[in-house]
Amino acid sequence: MTGTAAPFAADDYRARMERAARSAAEAGLAGLLVAPGPDLVWLTGYAPPATERLTLLVLAPGQDPVLVVPALEAPDAAKSPGASALTLRDWTDGKDPYAVTAPLLDTGGRFGISDNAWAMHLLGLQKALPGTSYASLTEALPMLRAVKDRAELELLAAAGAAADAAFEEIRKLPFGGRRESEVAADLADLLRRFGHSQVDFTIVASGPNGANPHHEVGDRVIERGDMVVLDFGGLKDGYGSDTSRTVHVGEPTDEERRVHDLVRAAQEAGFHAVRPGAACQEVDRAARAVIADAGYGEYFIHRTGHGIGVTTHEPPYMIEGEEQPLVPGMCFSVEPGVYLPGRFGVRIEDIVTVTESGGRRLNDTTREMVIVD
Amino acid sequence: MTGTAAPFAADDYRARMERAARSAAEAGLAGLLVAPGPDLVWLTGYAPPATERLTLLVLAPGQDPVLVVPALEAPDAAKSPGASALTLRDWTDGKDPYAVTAPLLDTGGRFGISDNAWAMHLLGLQKALPGTSYASLTEALPMLRAVKDRAELELLAAAGAAADAAFEEIRKLPFGGRRESEVAADLADLLRRFGHSQVDFTIVASGPNGANPHHEVGDRVIERGDMVVLDFGGLKDGYGSDTSRTVHVGEPTDEERRVHDLVRAAQEAGFHAVRPGAACQEVDRAARAVIADAGYGEYFIHRTGHGIGVTTHEPPYMIEGEEQPLVPGMCFSVEPGVYLPGRFGVRIEDIVTVTESGGRRLNDTTREMVIVD
Repeated sequence: MTGTAAPFAADDYRARMERAARSAAEAGLAGLLVAPGPDLVWLTGYAPPATERLTLLVLAPGQDPVLVVPALEAPDAAKSPGASALTLRDWTDGKDPYAVTAPLLDTGGRFGISDNAWAMHLLGLQKALPGTSYASLTEALPMLRAVKDRAELELLAAAGAAADAAFEEIRKLPFGGRRESEVAADLADLLRRFGHSQVDFTIVASGPNGANPHHEVGDRVIERGDMVVLDFGGLKDGYGSDTSRTVHVGEPTDEERRVHDLVRAAQEAGFHAVRPGAACQEVDRAARAVIADAGYGEYFIHRTGHGIGVTTHEPPYMIEGEEQPLVPGMCFSVEPGVYLPGRFGVRIEDIVTVTESGGRRLNDTTREMVIVD
Repeated sequence: MTGTAAPFAADDYRARMERAARSAAEAGLAGLLVAPGPDLVWLTGYAPPATERLTLLVLAPGQDPVLVVPALEAPDAAKSPGASALTLRDWTDGKDPYAVTAPLLDTGGRFGISDNAWAMHLLGLQKALPGTSYASLTEALPMLRAVKDRAELELLAAAGAAADAAFEEIRKLPFGGRRESEVAADLADLLRRFGHSQVDFTIVASGPNGANPHHEVGDRVIERGDMVVLDFGGLKDGYGSDTSRTVHVGEPTDEERRVHDLVRAAQEAGFHAVRPGAACQEVDRAARAVIADAGYGEYFIHRTGHGIGVTTHEPPYMIEGEEQPLVPGMCFSVEPGVYLPGRFGVRIEDIVTVTESGGRRLNDTTREMVIVD
């Protein structure tokens, strides 16, 4: 799920945990409850699977961080990169892990909890401490992991460069006559060859399949004359890549070229809306306006982008209604698309980071339509 | 997480959903809320990833099943094996998915919700419908997926046979002088070669690493004289395998042989405790007593077993305090172990199914200590 932890040291994790606890206090929270997954990886470097056995990091302002952990898994937790900044509190099978956690929490407090914490664990806490209340981290502290530091930006740039290298190779390979699943397997191999430890998705959506933005891959044989949406990414050294390009097998029709140019202009407009202080929704509006003005608004059926970091989908979201201002160091996708049901789709996506002077792309293969064989 | 769906038809899924809604009513629930993961796979054959976008199956007695699904993913949902037994209710980015779900729910009802539903989604429902209450499925309806039908038993038996075939091959390969990670890679390859679509774990824990039951695999070079715990499994045709054997590189010491014999006797005792009507905890007690009587009780630091089905860890749990009676068709692991800190560990594990006349093993490689090179 969250892949290998990035190469940070205990002091980095300690600083992140302190910052998180401070942000929690500023947001009026009694603390943060962090479940296995990207939040825990980012805060501690520890990446256990999420299971029915409770693992929970408790961060409360003015308290040392405590990791509640199944006894079975305590030896692994003790070896994690951030372990020296943590106190482990283990519990054995048959004990009530919520009773172990309860004394660590303010009995009347409001807590932020990882979005992906299991419902069974939240229900266990609500039952053990009926006076507490909870908000998801995306609601309570959505920007916790959103602003990347210099080391994180370097890792994201390296992941982006690796994804770009994979695109430069895949475009040289034949598309026509091969199944989507074969091209996808090549893409996955290329991502790994260029250093990815984990491949999260390799969408190859040809012809009418391209009109379904979440079509992953199928057995359809790609034909001459097809548009093919490629959208791929994963984790390299613990940080994510995610890029889309739409290629064409042989010469496109005028309409195909026009729609591709339109999406490219929308992506460009979204990118140019990126600057410190602009609201996330302005990025979405900028990209969407280009498509709507051309009469294709109803065919752009998803948000314009999502954040990226230790996971390939996280806040901030570039979507109407999201008023969060952009801050230098934020990283997210700008990925408008047009999807013509039963016919074809086009999506163009770069990861963009906010700098003092505007956006900087972490993907930079050509955004012109690439003709493949 | 949940891998490929098993080869069942829409009628099978319809029957499962009807049975689940009936069980919910009998348990006094207003309905079941099913999140992406094993519950959803089992009930519908649909296996989307769990994300911040709400996908939720609503099963309520006397209502047709409704799948709330992001508009983006609706085309994939509509192609899932159980789709013809479902009504899809889609929502688009920017809309409130809890407001879309609320009209489907009894505003004062108590609902069972998938253990692994995301906390953010549970919090969204609790906020949208303050009069509702929730219990995790493991608490409210723990045996929902526990009793397997004939087709499921065949799939579990086939997965077990494939894992056994992998063990028969790995024991022929050299252990001494190779890294744990190399042996683990071979095990993963073997599981795939014998039909697994997904490898969930390949624990290779040599020498002192074997004393940590959740040690997965490391760079330690296996030495002559090491005990090596192997614990591996995954999904084949949508159903799980999970087996452990402890091998020895060269001739064991008397103590190593004694501890191995002890664990083997405990596993045998646990297996023989399996019969319809016995409580789950009796399986744990039978295995544990053998180890405790020999003076090693403090070194058996986990429960004796867990259920298996469309996932490799699920109810019922063979643990002290679990009074659920065994029912023919249940499938679970029987896997006692002894872990001597800093020295070595031994674990022996079979998947066992309950029949009218007692237990039947779905793993049957030798439980005697295998000497490897």
